[in-house]
Amino acid sequence: MRMAELSRESGLSIATIKFYLREGLLPPGERTSPNQARYDQGHVRRLRLIRALIEVGGLSVTSAHAVLAAMNEGPFAALGTAQDVMIGPTEAADEWSQERYAELVRSMGWHVHPDSAAARQVRDLLATARDTGNVDLVAHWSAYAEHADALGRQDVDWMADRPDLEAMISGAVAGTVLGAAYFNALRMLAHQHYSVQRWPEEAAQQANRI
Amino acid sequence: MRMAELSRESGLSIATIKFYLREGLLPPGERTSPNQARYDQGHVRRLRLIRALIEVGGLSVTSAHAVLAAMNEGPFAALGTAQDVMIGPTEAADEWSQERYAELVRSMGWHVHPDSAAARQVRDLLATARDTGNVDLVAHWSAYAEHADALGRQDVDWMADRPDLEAMISGAVAGTVLGAAYFNALRMLAHQHYSVQRWPEEAAQQANRI
Repeated sequence: MRMAELSRESGLSIATIKFYLREGLLPPGERTSPNQARYDQGHVRRLRLIRALIEVGGLSVTSAHAVLAAMNEGPFAALGTAQDVMIGPTEAADEWSQERYAELVRSMGWHVHPDSAAARQVRDLLATARDTGNVDLVAHWSAYAEHADALGRQDVDWMADRPDLEAMISGAVAGTVLGAAYFNALRMLAHQHYSVQRWPEEAAQQANRI
Repeated sequence: MRMAELSRESGLSIATIKFYLREGLLPPGERTSPNQARYDQGHVRRLRLIRALIEVGGLSVTSAHAVLAAMNEGPFAALGTAQDVMIGPTEAADEWSQERYAELVRSMGWHVHPDSAAARQVRDLLATARDTGNVDLVAHWSAYAEHADALGRQDVDWMADRPDLEAMISGAVAGTVLGAAYFNALRMLAHQHYSVQRWPEEAAQQANRI
């Protein structure tokens, strides 16, 4: 397909697509003349993935580029880079959160990198829960790890069972970014459902708020 | 405590605190002279919550303000507003994603608002999974709903069991924003653990990447 059709199919303007081509987020099409190139469904899927990384994942163009570059290195590298860029800067952990993190990882039997973005985020959030006057969240959150373990195992099985390497890699990235947002939205729906049961009067007054 | 101590305790600069006071994110202290006010631990906790909303939740000052304003209306309003601002703009749903959303909500027995930010996000992500060449994510994600339901029910129980209304409301906001980030980080740790088992060679080569 030509550039105009690629724009229609992806829902992105020609100017945006040309920007992604220049920045190396989108591989060049097959050149058919000095001024024209042909694109295929792989380009459409790639553009939609870039859109999802930026719009759903909230990534910058630079971060999206890092993820796409890592996709050339295989599913493990793609997964790690997607994790890195999804998590912003974190504070240095204090002893209290370090101990709780170590206990969590030990109790789950996880072999994980203690300096990874996800590990730093866990320690940071434990400290933040404590410092915002919600230290009891830490005990409450102990139930989260079992659910995360079950989901994470199924996610990796799903990824590894995909038909080819390209699909595995795309699945690693889409699964990380879209899956996080999807679970979060489902958890919010469950909060709606159970909080209406819990506070029916407030819910009736605010029916148009939630 | 004086402003200087509030700054030390909260880890925020005096300029930032004065900005939050002007913008109404932080309630004023108790005035002790025309130029001085006294602050208490409630101010420290509130500043840490504002920091968490902005740094962890990625909210703008305007969105953080909307959440803090809703906190005066009760736990249900605080929860709904936290959900609204955590989820950005979404696309209009097509029939395909609308049908899948309806089936999900029916199968879970959830009574939720179909126009809420979370419901729109679910429909949007179903379409995005399909359009990025990952339509099999939709079937894979069916397992997510049971976990989200279990967590969501426990979250609302935890919130409702807190000692007083202020703690319930703070818990609604902190639980929504911090809890989403915490579960996401745990899921990433599980991805690390199971993907190292799945791709041990690639993992060994990239030990410093994840």
